[in-house]
This record gives sequence, structure tokens and C-alpha cells, in this order.
Amino acid sequence: MNKTAFYNLSYGVYVCTSWDEGRPVGCVANSAMQITSSPATIAVSLNHGNYTNKCVSDTGRFAIAVLGENVDPKLIGRFGFASSKDTDKFAETPYAVRGKMPVIDDCVCWFSCKVIDKMETATHTVFLGEVLDADVLRKDAPMTYAYYHKVLKGKTAANAPTYQAEEKSAGKYVCKICKYEYDGETPFEELPDDWTCPICGAPKSQFEKK
Amino acid sequence: MNKTAFYNLSYGVYVCTSWDEGRPVGCVANSAMQITSSPATIAVSLNHGNYTNKCVSDTGRFAIAVLGENVDPKLIGRFGFASSKDTDKFAETPYAVRGKMPVIDDCVCWFSCKVIDKMETATHTVFLGEVLDADVLRKDAPMTYAYYHKVLKGKTAANAPTYQAEEKSAGKYVCKICKYEYDGETPFEELPDDWTCPICGAPKSQFEKK
Repeated sequence: MNKTAFYNLSYGVYVCTSWDEGRPVGCVANSAMQITSSPATIAVSLNHGNYTNKCVSDTGRFAIAVLGENVDPKLIGRFGFASSKDTDKFAETPYAVRGKMPVIDDCVCWFSCKVIDKMETATHTVFLGEVLDADVLRKDAPMTYAYYHKVLKGKTAANAPTYQAEEKSAGKYVCKICKYEYDGETPFEELPDDWTCPICGAPKSQFEKK
Repeated sequence: MNKTAFYNLSYGVYVCTSWDEGRPVGCVANSAMQITSSPATIAVSLNHGNYTNKCVSDTGRFAIAVLGENVDPKLIGRFGFASSKDTDKFAETPYAVRGKMPVIDDCVCWFSCKVIDKMETATHTVFLGEVLDADVLRKDAPMTYAYYHKVLKGKTAANAPTYQAEEKSAGKYVCKICKYEYDGETPFEELPDDWTCPICGAPKSQFEKK
């Protein structure tokens, strides 16, 4: 099997949110798609290890926010490489309750969904949600996963459906939090002390040489 | 609910194929996504009205071919706007048996899958397939659904998950087969008699004025 074939499937980049006893929680998801148009339903795949998976199961509700190409990359770091179990991802994230769900402000559009079915797999749950409400917040082009990798040089969390173990690049500095690989013009050692990871905001001290 | 929000979900464009008692069948699908990485699984959503849905259910096998930006648009017309029940879509389509499944030659890469679960919805079946084999055939950029609509001016079949009834454009000539809306420089009436629909290959006589 040629595993590079998987790189040719096209996705968007989304933040899936829910409630944990009144507290907003969420994580980055890239596997979401419309399944039916009448009634409108959306399926989203969440890893069993995502705390948001548990909250969607418990509440039977989730929201999907579509990230735009101009999204603050730190938002992806915050929602993609930390756990809502022990992190308040919304503390520094502007959001509002939309369609009764917590929805981040920094998105192209959002869908508020009620779980009507689910399918379990070895590592992920596929939730099928009926869309109860939806709106567009701005005109920014929806970010594709290809754009995230090519333009933002983003990496994939180990619990994402699309994760494949990557070769370590010898001699490169890599963020321990989000796996971002520094490839700027300035040698890493010469970056100012207050420089932070462009994806997750981690300080320079969180980078290690591979 | 603002239904235009749905236009911001990102998809690729795929041809899903299967066997009908030894005869190759297939249809266009845009709702496909990887669900797990180990074992690798892919979910695809097919309308109950698609003959390919019945064949995937009967055989428990399907293949997904990822279409590239340079795909012959007539292939989308053939596989997206006709039924395998009464049409031999492969008669004029170069293909080969790959991973024991019929796979069109005109694709970026393909996946041969065994159905391991499925979820029924009001109008579609979501098949979960374990990927048994996969390969890349060429380097063409995978076509996104946005590219199909913007660059190829493609339309959506009425039984697709992403279909939403579109406003009819007054005075425009529209293909009765695939709903392609002619918007070329040359007035439609002045096009040569042997001109054919760039999407599905239908003759000029199959166009009607809206």
C-alpha cells in the first residue's frame, strides 16, 4: 500500500466545540462533511482520546466552526495540541454562544448540531449531527488542510485521523508542543528570546533539535 | 438558518466504484474522508438512489479514485449525471482492475476498501471502509469541490449530499443532463452544431433556455 495516497484527500480545518457541564470545550477537527441536505446533517470524526468526544457524547450536541485562511495560527495550536480536560482553551479565545453552543469568533461560519447517530471505530467516533442552526460570520476563504500544511507549515496532532508518523528532520528545531518545524531564514539560535512558536505560541525553550 | 454556510465546507471530488456481478459500476462522490489511520479507514457517503450504493452494499467492497484538476470534465458528467443501472459508464472510460476493484485511469490516486461498518441516514448511507490497498497514479493536484464549481463551472447532482436547489438564471442556456450553465463569450445560438456540453458531452439539442 502506498500511504502517500492519503495526502490527496481534501479537507477543511474546523474547530468542533461542545459543553462540559456549562464549560466550553473544543478541539481541531479536519474530518467533517455534509451527509444529507434535507434534513441537513454533518458528520464529524473525533478521536476517543479527545476530551471533546466525551462531551459531545454526554450532551448530544456539538458545533462546527469553519476556519478561514486568515485565522490566527495560535488558535490552531491552542485547540489542536492541548486538551480541554486540563486547559481552558476559551480563556484567551473570543467566542459567543451561537445556536446554544460555544462558537469561536475567528471563523468563516458555524453549524450548531444535535447528535442523531454515531458510528464507533477502533480509534474514532463518527458523530452524525442534524444541523439546527448555522450562520456565516465573514467572507474569508475557508482554509483547506492542504493550505494549512503548505502555507502555514502546520503539523498534524498524533490523534488526528490523518496523522501518519513523519520522518524526523535531522538538525532542525521542532516545537515540543505542536511539532512545528522551524525553517525561517534566521538561524534558530539567533532568534530573539521573546520569539514564540507561530503555531501554538510556545516559547523558544520549548523547541528541541532533532 | 443561513444555508450558504454549507458552501464553506471543503471537499475533494471522487469517483466511487464497485462491482455489479462482475460488471464495473461507479458514481461521483464528494463526501469522502479518512476516519482512522491505523488501520486506515475511509468513510464515503452515497445516496440511496445511487445504483452504486446497492452494489457496495451487496459486495461489501468499493474503491475511491481521487480526481485531479486536469481530469477530463466529461468523466464527471458520465459518472455524476447518469445511472450505472442502465448505463455502462466504463465503455468509454479507460480503467484497470487495481486492488481487485475497477479503478479509472484518469485519477491522482486510488484506495481499495472493504466495508467494515455503515450508518444509514434519511437519504444516504455512510460506508466505512478499511483500506486494503492504495496507490498514486500521477502528480496532478487533487481537485477540490470549490475548484470544480469555480473553474469548471460544474453543477451538483440532485442526489448529492451537498445539493441545494439553485435559482434558475433567466435567459441562460442550461444542459438538461448535467445542469451545466453555458456562459461563454459566443452567443449560444451561434455555437457550431457539433458543439457539446463541456461537462457531460451532451449535444447542443440537450440545452434549454431558462
